[in-house]
Amino acid sequence: MPSADPTALIDGRPAAVVPLTDRGLQYGDGLFETIAVLDGEPLLWERHMQRLAAGCARLLLPAPDPAILLEEARSLSADTASGVLKLIYTAGSSQRGYARPQLLQPRRILVLSPPPDHPWRYWREGVDIGYCSLRLQPQGMFAGLKHLARLEQVLARREVDGRGLVEGLLLDRDGCVVEAVACNVFAVCDGMLLTPPLDDAGVRGVMRDYVLELAQELGIPVAQRPLMPGQLAAAEEIFLTNSLIGLWPVRTLEGQHYGRGPVAARLLARLIAAKAFLIPAGLNNDG
Amino acid sequence: MPSADPTALIDGRPAAVVPLTDRGLQYGDGLFETIAVLDGEPLLWERHMQRLAAGCARLLLPAPDPAILLEEARSLSADTASGVLKLIYTAGSSQRGYARPQLLQPRRILVLSPPPDHPWRYWREGVDIGYCSLRLQPQGMFAGLKHLARLEQVLARREVDGRGLVEGLLLDRDGCVVEAVACNVFAVCDGMLLTPPLDDAGVRGVMRDYVLELAQELGIPVAQRPLMPGQLAAAEEIFLTNSLIGLWPVRTLEGQHYGRGPVAARLLARLIAAKAFLIPAGLNNDG
Repeated sequence: MPSADPTALIDGRPAAVVPLTDRGLQYGDGLFETIAVLDGEPLLWERHMQRLAAGCARLLLPAPDPAILLEEARSLSADTASGVLKLIYTAGSSQRGYARPQLLQPRRILVLSPPPDHPWRYWREGVDIGYCSLRLQPQGMFAGLKHLARLEQVLARREVDGRGLVEGLLLDRDGCVVEAVACNVFAVCDGMLLTPPLDDAGVRGVMRDYVLELAQELGIPVAQRPLMPGQLAAAEEIFLTNSLIGLWPVRTLEGQHYGRGPVAARLLARLIAAKAFLIPAGLNNDG
Repeated sequence: MPSADPTALIDGRPAAVVPLTDRGLQYGDGLFETIAVLDGEPLLWERHMQRLAAGCARLLLPAPDPAILLEEARSLSADTASGVLKLIYTAGSSQRGYARPQLLQPRRILVLSPPPDHPWRYWREGVDIGYCSLRLQPQGMFAGLKHLARLEQVLARREVDGRGLVEGLLLDRDGCVVEAVACNVFAVCDGMLLTPPLDDAGVRGVMRDYVLELAQELGIPVAQRPLMPGQLAAAEEIFLTNSLIGLWPVRTLEGQHYGRGPVAARLLARLIAAKAFLIPAGLNNDG
């Protein structure tokens, strides 16, 4: 049987399996990044590497060499016009038990997947979302990190699918809006662009931080501030961001309609111009 | 090369690796049990299966057939005088993304490891423990479960090892004692046996629940109540429990000495008589 191009590399070698001893499987001892690939190139690479390095520092893991990772990412993605590169970085293998081995050898797992096939109207017309009943627990020292423990997102995703929605907003124990299941959330309230600070829960999305910077470049007043459902009900615009989709305006939240507003449109145009996400066919720079 | 006895089974077949697509690795979408094996038999089996089934219900996973699992556990453990059987039960494989597949096929992973080699004086003289600085975050709907996300325990274990202690106690955000890194904790205060209720954090250990029942059988007054460090400082006895060690008296907590008290001794004698844990050589039923 001729060998197809590999769709996964572990420590640089084609692989489809991981040892049972891997601490990512055993204890969730690791981090991940979900990276858009366009024309063979991983997007927002530096930002992903910065977040990964920050996560490693927090988890007391040695950070990977970004140059080696980039070489591996490019080798895997070379023939890919559009795709998703998931990087899982674990504490490697060990004997049974919570203690990491004396000689810790982290494992780099890169998996290439096809791009999601969202309809282009999600960008043009916006998406229908609601609130999940699941509340995000505080994460303490793990807040903001993209660690491997994603059970909350798995169960929240079930809620979203069960209601036939595209995405769902997650509240924390205090009833503050934190994020969506796989996106960060922004709202325009009284002309100011707001997004939750993620001090105690949620994932600090690479696209979120990029959008915050773009907004500042565009002279849009921005603030990282706790957001309550009441503020979203009164917002002029709501939109979602992540590394794959870039930006989706929210069309309805629990049935309440929002216009596709000028702030989302300006930011999306900039993201398209920068080729910063998996731009679907049919979406042009006319925003 | 002659094939050695397998030390791991996946869905009943000898295996040393798991597909990269496994949702346990990808999202921590699963549960585990750590089971003592003595003379080829997994101990406290029914209790482990009950906890696993309760965890599956909470995570909306189909529960495994305990009869099949027992057959697999026995086949793996047949020649094992003393060992540790770790059962990892994941949501199986899926495409990328938080959504579980329509046709969910959980994966049963059984790994057999050698027994830990703790010195017998841990049981006779007790262990030296301290408080970890890491605070356990509230777990909400996951409280009590033995799910795959164990980053807190990994980092807390580092603290314990760094201080040369045997175990460490973990507090929650409010400063209440929850558990030790890999054990539950009990204290005898004014003649009453107390252990934290684990309503919002911690793992509801199989040995913990067994010890609670034994205490009631022995007529020892017990209560599940929040425990504060101040109460532990004034306690007559402190001890730790888990499925592998059974029960360890605490000799010192942050340098403060505790006697090896009568409650721990009576309970340990019952656990030894019931062959309920990995009894080390040199520990006899004279407690």
